Amino acid sequence: MDERTYTAEAEPGDDVTVKGWVHEIRDLGGIAFIIVRDTSGKIQVKFEKDEMDDDLVDTGLGVHRESVVGVTGRVEEEGRAPTGVEIVPESVEVIAEADPELPLDPSGKVDAELPTRLDNRTLDLRKPDVKAIFEIRAEVLRSVREAFREVGCTEINTPKIVATGTEGGTELFPITYFGREAFMNQSPQLFKQLMVGSGLERVFEIGPIFRAEEHNTPRHLNEATSIDFESAFFDHTQAMDVCEHVVKAAYEGVAENCQAQLEALDLEDEFEVPDGEFPRLSYEEAIEKVNATGELDEPLVFGDDLSTEAEHALGQAVGEHYFITDWPSEIKPFYIKDHDDQPELSTGFDMMHPSMELVSGGQREHRYDNLVEGFEQQGLDPEAFEYYTKMFRYGMPPHAGWGLGGERLVMTMLGLDNIREAVLFPRDRQRLSP
Amino acid sequence: MDERTYTAEAEPGDDVTVKGWVHEIRDLGGIAFIIVRDTSGKIQVKFEKDEMDDDLVDTGLGVHRESVVGVTGRVEEEGRAPTGVEIVPESVEVIAEADPELPLDPSGKVDAELPTRLDNRTLDLRKPDVKAIFEIRAEVLRSVREAFREVGCTEINTPKIVATGTEGGTELFPITYFGREAFMNQSPQLFKQLMVGSGLERVFEIGPIFRAEEHNTPRHLNEATSIDFESAFFDHTQAMDVCEHVVKAAYEGVAENCQAQLEALDLEDEFEVPDGEFPRLSYEEAIEKVNATGELDEPLVFGDDLSTEAEHALGQAVGEHYFITDWPSEIKPFYIKDHDDQPELSTGFDMMHPSMELVSGGQREHRYDNLVEGFEQQGLDPEAFEYYTKMFRYGMPPHAGWGLGGERLVMTMLGLDNIREAVLFPRDRQRLSP
Repeated sequence: MDERTYTAEAEPGDDVTVKGWVHEIRDLGGIAFIIVRDTSGKIQVKFEKDEMDDDLVDTGLGVHRESVVGVTGRVEEEGRAPTGVEIVPESVEVIAEADPELPLDPSGKVDAELPTRLDNRTLDLRKPDVKAIFEIRAEVLRSVREAFREVGCTEINTPKIVATGTEGGTELFPITYFGREAFMNQSPQLFKQLMVGSGLERVFEIGPIFRAEEHNTPRHLNEATSIDFESAFFDHTQAMDVCEHVVKAAYEGVAENCQAQLEALDLEDEFEVPDGEFPRLSYEEAIEKVNATGELDEPLVFGDDLSTEAEHALGQAVGEHYFITDWPSEIKPFYIKDHDDQPELSTGFDMMHPSMELVSGGQREHRYDNLVEGFEQQGLDPEAFEYYTKMFRYGMPPHAGWGLGGERLVMTMLGLDNIREAVLFPRDRQRLSP
Repeated sequence: MDERTYTAEAEPGDDVTVKGWVHEIRDLGGIAFIIVRDTSGKIQVKFEKDEMDDDLVDTGLGVHRESVVGVTGRVEEEGRAPTGVEIVPESVEVIAEADPELPLDPSGKVDAELPTRLDNRTLDLRKPDVKAIFEIRAEVLRSVREAFREVGCTEINTPKIVATGTEGGTELFPITYFGREAFMNQSPQLFKQLMVGSGLERVFEIGPIFRAEEHNTPRHLNEATSIDFESAFFDHTQAMDVCEHVVKAAYEGVAENCQAQLEALDLEDEFEVPDGEFPRLSYEEAIEKVNATGELDEPLVFGDDLSTEAEHALGQAVGEHYFITDWPSEIKPFYIKDHDDQPELSTGFDMMHPSMELVSGGQREHRYDNLVEGFEQQGLDPEAFEYYTKMFRYGMPPHAGWGLGGERLVMTMLGLDNIREAVLFPRDRQRLSP
């Protein structure tokens, strides 16, 4: 399918045409080199000025850095070349000339601030470490989908334009839909639940979610990728089992298939696939543990949500992925089922990386009357959600599930400082373009 | 992970608990049966009234159809049972009682109109043929992704909230983004192009697209799934090779992994994986061929687009998947490259199923000056697209790609009459919920 040779595949003795970007030009006088970079790596091209056609030398050395060129020639062994081989060119074609001034230096020699990088993602992704993040992101999605299929899930796609939000309220982006008010969906929650009552029973979805949160932090996005799971006849503990399976599979996939990318990120030594079961702390144990760290100005009491500060203190104390279970009912959404024997505690759980929350889940309320009551207590009009609630009158099994932030998974896996590093074209309060 | 036995796995002699929906209740007097259905199939449960506990019999036979039950008992061979085995129950638990009146009959005995089915997708997907469509859809997505990886693509995700539409104009849904005007993206076109100039070079994306078209036809959706491909250093013929590879892979995946689903749809005999190369007709050959059918009231002339009528006539004449290449430049978008030696002809192509267009693609215009001129000719302000155009000044290689309608692929593969059959919760002018 490809008519060119990738730089990584050029072997001594081959006659090749490589195509790529001019990464570097080094002119030593009688001899000069350009380094050509493509997606597979880099290769040196040698120009011996006295022995080569002037036009060839002028063309090869006259281009600006980051121009696109095609180089045809013979590959030769050369111990002093960065990859041990070089091309002795017969012809050089300038395919797309680059401006001499670049808004960002893809060689990585000059650092750029994140906003500049995001404004110039095309150039930014020419850097091997940035490219590696997105190759790893793709592998995470691949291995996560495979892990879901291993436990019998069917992939679904649910609508992103909706008449009502999952939890109503202020976090919705309004849209004009043929003259009607609609919203961009903040979660596939209600739709995936409708599917566990269907013949599919166990489903997953990976897709965009949209939240009009005013947060502007290094770990919030207004458009994010949600990895969602839901299964009929599961309780919260079984949903947690699947969660652990899926997150481990993502790490395993990266460990198996992305060694080069981990090296590009200097992570090959510290990257570890989580082993053993993730500890499962009850909410009560969690707040005790946080309070015992002495890191908080004021100790947590039952009913408090975990602040970012508390999450950090707890994460440091636990030191690995862990679950927090049995949250107070009052701070979990209405669609989470409470424990039958202890209605003040819910079956809601969070799965945490030491540095932040990754997953929120639980067993769902599947009893029609309790569900409608939940809507009312939340201040939502059950009528507006009738398309959802009415299905609970026609045989809705007990079920459980969770949602995992895709970007947070990549961010914590790779130790990125800002979640925007894990998104090609992030959306936040300020950023709407590119 | 599962604590229950799936009905399809119940073997004679096993002590099991199955959980599922009451598909049917048959009371023959002294003996009665319920059929329990789960995602894997169905199983008969036998009640011998005189020999069993009254409570057990009353519970088992007192539930309404489509209620969720758990049945614990011994599996026995029974030649007269639909699956050759039956359960002799020790206990029956009513897990979720269904209303006696259902808005739709999941047994399929009573037909329902499409709107009723879409309003009650949970019940609709209890029918094996409907469920099969979505299991096949999931397999199509799986095998398409695999086919992309086989040709060296990296999966990407690009934003769905954008400041400007790909082609501008009237087909965009406006959204309010923190007080600013924004739109839901109608195509990842510009973003995937930006990625071929990055170190990724070859990418694919599967995600939602949003089109505010006023069409209300059996083959248009306002929210659809687009399967997008783009590669650096490819011309349109190489992009067509990948297109053919990916579409065939989807058929192969379904043939290999979805025999049961094809049987549920009564398609096991007629389903065929396309073999051989898809014919490649030039636009001129295509209009000649259409005109030769004599099916059109008025013959097509150079510059005409193909009407639905013309597509049908041509599709019938060709009788298999095919490409139409070398379209007149004036009816293809500005970002499609024209042939250098024949600027009135573009490198744009469509890939057609005999019944409709599936794919639109081409080599892209990668030369900065020509691209900016194209924007102006299209009546678009190049300034508004500067985030995109400026990257073409920093070494943008020649590239080509295409977009494939995911629902149309499933629809044509399975011979569905309406594209809404291939979407769980379709969006059209009237339908915004569920």
